[in-house]
Amino acid sequence: MQKLFQAKVYVSLKKGLADPQGSTIKEALEFLGYRNLSEVRFGKYIEVELRAKGKKGAEQKLKEMCGKLLVNPIIEEYSYHIEEGQAG
Amino acid sequence: MQKLFQAKVYVSLKKGLADPQGSTIKEALEFLGYRNLSEVRFGKYIEVELRAKGKKGAEQKLKEMCGKLLVNPIIEEYSYHIEEGQAG
Repeated sequence: MQKLFQAKVYVSLKKGLADPQGSTIKEALEFLGYRNLSEVRFGKYIEVELRAKGKKGAEQKLKEMCGKLLVNPIIEEYSYHIEEGQAG
Repeated sequence: MQKLFQAKVYVSLKKGLADPQGSTIKEALEFLGYRNLSEVRFGKYIEVELRAKGKKGAEQKLKEMCGKLLVNPIIEEYSYHIEEGQAG
């Protein structure tokens, strides 16, 4: 019997790498009057709904997917959160 | 005296709206052998480092930024997380 898991993956460029999208957003926000920003970084947010036998299995699958497709480990880093159940 | 806050904003398309990027990622993952996916949604992840007098003020500023620039309320929804302190 497989259970349903909601996984959320947050991918961002590694610290220290230039992030032109983040810089552009920062400039736009400053133009709008927000002067107290020290940094803006832009990344990807991926929600994956998957079936697995248990949380450990779901976590393992998710890490594989990140390594194979979702994340470019040379320039990106990621974190994730998994919980059992239907989408909120 | 202003304090430093780390804010993370997660933006995704509203449920029910077609998400071509998410669908493409889902197909690619299925092609790689991951057959137990029910859904993949693709969104944006924005880290904002800002200064404010307190957490309430930081939160209010962040919500304004989302309303004015970061999020398109017609087609997107968002959630956020703020904490005080330096980037991890």
